[in-house]
Amino acid sequence: MHADPQEPNRIPDDEPQRAAERPHQLREAQLREEGEEERRYGVEPEFVEEVVAHLRDNRREELRAEIADLHPADVADLIEQLGHDEREALVGLLRPDFDGEVLSYLNPDLREEIVGLFEPKELAAAVADLDTDDAVDVIEDLDEETRREVLENLPAADRALVQENLTYDEYTAGRLMQRDLVAVPLFWTVGKTIDYVRAASDDLPEDFYDIFVVDPMHRVVGAVPLSRLLRQKRSVRIADIVTEEVDTIPATMDQEEVANLFRQYALVSAPVVDAGGRLIGVITVDDVVHIIDEEAEDDIRKLGGVGDTGVFSGIRDIARSRVWWLAVNLVTAFIASGVISLFEGTISQIVALAVLMPIVASMGGNAGTQTLTVVVRALATRELSSSNALRVVGKEVLVGLINGVVFAVLVGLIAWTWFSPMIGVVIACAMVINLFVAGLFGALLPLGLDKLGVDPAVASAVFLTTVTDVVGFFAFLGLAAAILL
Amino acid sequence: MHADPQEPNRIPDDEPQRAAERPHQLREAQLREEGEEERRYGVEPEFVEEVVAHLRDNRREELRAEIADLHPADVADLIEQLGHDEREALVGLLRPDFDGEVLSYLNPDLREEIVGLFEPKELAAAVADLDTDDAVDVIEDLDEETRREVLENLPAADRALVQENLTYDEYTAGRLMQRDLVAVPLFWTVGKTIDYVRAASDDLPEDFYDIFVVDPMHRVVGAVPLSRLLRQKRSVRIADIVTEEVDTIPATMDQEEVANLFRQYALVSAPVVDAGGRLIGVITVDDVVHIIDEEAEDDIRKLGGVGDTGVFSGIRDIARSRVWWLAVNLVTAFIASGVISLFEGTISQIVALAVLMPIVASMGGNAGTQTLTVVVRALATRELSSSNALRVVGKEVLVGLINGVVFAVLVGLIAWTWFSPMIGVVIACAMVINLFVAGLFGALLPLGLDKLGVDPAVASAVFLTTVTDVVGFFAFLGLAAAILL
Repeated sequence: MHADPQEPNRIPDDEPQRAAERPHQLREAQLREEGEEERRYGVEPEFVEEVVAHLRDNRREELRAEIADLHPADVADLIEQLGHDEREALVGLLRPDFDGEVLSYLNPDLREEIVGLFEPKELAAAVADLDTDDAVDVIEDLDEETRREVLENLPAADRALVQENLTYDEYTAGRLMQRDLVAVPLFWTVGKTIDYVRAASDDLPEDFYDIFVVDPMHRVVGAVPLSRLLRQKRSVRIADIVTEEVDTIPATMDQEEVANLFRQYALVSAPVVDAGGRLIGVITVDDVVHIIDEEAEDDIRKLGGVGDTGVFSGIRDIARSRVWWLAVNLVTAFIASGVISLFEGTISQIVALAVLMPIVASMGGNAGTQTLTVVVRALATRELSSSNALRVVGKEVLVGLINGVVFAVLVGLIAWTWFSPMIGVVIACAMVINLFVAGLFGALLPLGLDKLGVDPAVASAVFLTTVTDVVGFFAFLGLAAAILL
Repeated sequence: MHADPQEPNRIPDDEPQRAAERPHQLREAQLREEGEEERRYGVEPEFVEEVVAHLRDNRREELRAEIADLHPADVADLIEQLGHDEREALVGLLRPDFDGEVLSYLNPDLREEIVGLFEPKELAAAVADLDTDDAVDVIEDLDEETRREVLENLPAADRALVQENLTYDEYTAGRLMQRDLVAVPLFWTVGKTIDYVRAASDDLPEDFYDIFVVDPMHRVVGAVPLSRLLRQKRSVRIADIVTEEVDTIPATMDQEEVANLFRQYALVSAPVVDAGGRLIGVITVDDVVHIIDEEAEDDIRKLGGVGDTGVFSGIRDIARSRVWWLAVNLVTAFIASGVISLFEGTISQIVALAVLMPIVASMGGNAGTQTLTVVVRALATRELSSSNALRVVGKEVLVGLINGVVFAVLVGLIAWTWFSPMIGVVIACAMVINLFVAGLFGALLPLGLDKLGVDPAVASAVFLTTVTDVVGFFAFLGLAAAILL
């Protein structure tokens, strides 16, 4: 913060009057800016309707013209908004010069469908214009046969790079990295570096944010952000402005780790190195944004008991992906039923118990899920570790007890009035027990699973509701049998 | 992808032998690289233990030395891993020259506690070194009294900028933006721009990725990414290399919209404009990463029924934030009980119904939650809109029916064997009905709430489980009463 508040725009004020000599067209969204506060990007429902109408009437020229101005990300969005037949028609229309970038913006479920509409040769042509990482992203999902054919149709240089990336495991830095980058030796000057960038311009990546500094063995010894390079005189040596503490990413690093590293140190780009520490690629923050989205999505879906299908998956895939979770839940539901059946005699004598028993189990399940959600996320974002785990468990147990007492009093009074004083006492005691257990297991289960190397997001919820159901029914019906009969 | 696979590192090979003239120290994590695949950043539990031991024995010098080398993000992590008393001791030790950046990396719950340990004067000193956006981030959470005192102790120029940002609403672009930026007129050349950056170096932001081009009224007319500027000859005019289709962000735009815009077009930085379209700041992708995390976190917490408290919140805050959700759940549980009580007579005659009835309700709740999760996320990521909503609802209903039949058969057979054939038939019918309803409402509820302007993540789950509980108990017990008695 060194700015002069009087002149925050810091445009130098010599000869500003001659600016804006040529006309410029801004994106339509911007021109509308003052009127609307609404959605200022992406495709509007009205536009989708227009496209559908054009498709129906087969007005090819209008359509091509309308879509030519769209950002590839918006074309991808448009495809996502269309129905199956309209999608095919649109892609058929765009096919002659299909922009490969659209593929990399498409939802993976739909991409599979769209990619199937192309010949391997056409795919290769579309993919050849992409950066290595985006090309790999599209090619890795193809079936083996198509993948081979697409690779064969790629220019030799591209093919080699793509194949090299494919040798790394899925979801690792090696798959994500962009191969084009700028690397210079330590003894160069700022001037020489700028001259090199100008001369080699065509071979360089479209966008880059750091210049990497390497030793004669191609090992990373540092980095220079472009903004720093730019503000130095031409005579300054790279060695004098290099940041030596650079976070290098092994090509085998898991993408979730990569995202955590970028997030932790607010990185914009980072060098990827092979086992020998040699610079082989670069990962930029736009890929990381994508991963962060994916990982959060992943946690949400696992907590919701949804497999890896989404709104664009086929019905059979969706149904199949959810059966597993429902089946597991069915087992736990039957375990709970088993507990209830132990007390059939008690229930037949006091039917009120059947009326009230879901309350204890349901409150336990919800309280446990609250704890679980917080702990699973804290583990994912690494706020929780063995250093502070015990404190968190203690806290959750206490919260469970406090809320257990609050709701015990409330529910107890209602049951007292509705049925009988003693039933009120029984349900109150059961409530405290179950909310205490919910807090304890809601915290311990994900921590334990994490320790065992099992993803806590996917398995915790099943175990937890089994525990809260069993404890809930057992405490309530058991106490009732002991006290009331 | 234009790279030569033989030389992916593209280090120019003239005189590479003289490189690496001076020693360089890499971050310790990197040196360990070959041995370990583990966590390569942040603070390790062993390090935390060491710090705790030093704190206990009051070895101030060792501690200061150890912490001096840490990245501010790691110091923040360290503080998060410590207990309350240790935290205070450590901050007391670091206090004389506390790095303001640590504050901006701290979890907001803890930041409040840590900030309370400082005098306003000390806080002002720590905050003065930060970029405007980070300073605002720390200052906005202070109570009014402290905020005023801290602002008074800031240098006048900084104070004006911070106060200006604070005039914008929380969670808007105006709060997030960095005020220092580089803006040049359209008629300048690359050379003149580079000279300007070199001369004005001290007034410029530490890192920047784009140079913004403005007209005489300071309105944004385009942008030039640094990497493009760098590869052009000095004589090239900015007008010839400018990207005119720039996404400008109104200062009043909600931060979620900002994140969506960055995500949609893979932006690295974007200009913020006032109501008149004048350039007043810049938002960079590192802030956006932070927002994306927050927004995903937010959805996860809402779906889990957790308020805005986390593992670092106080027990009273946690308990209070969760009571609301549990209370709502209690109401729905009593509604379900009410349904059951309608059938007390039936249950007293066939106790098996009490044993089996939670199964139907629980399967419905889980199937509904699956649909809900997918739809809520698709709404949040804008994959779902009015154009394709109907198709998604249809799909979910079909999936509900398919899985309803699958589990109807399964549960029916088990109930048939366990109790009686007719009970098996009754539970099978109830299962189909409830999973159909779960799919229908799981999709319609979030879509309807979204249409009404209510956040679907927070309210859908309550309504949904009410529906699946009521329908589940009603269908099962009602059919039983009609068929079995």
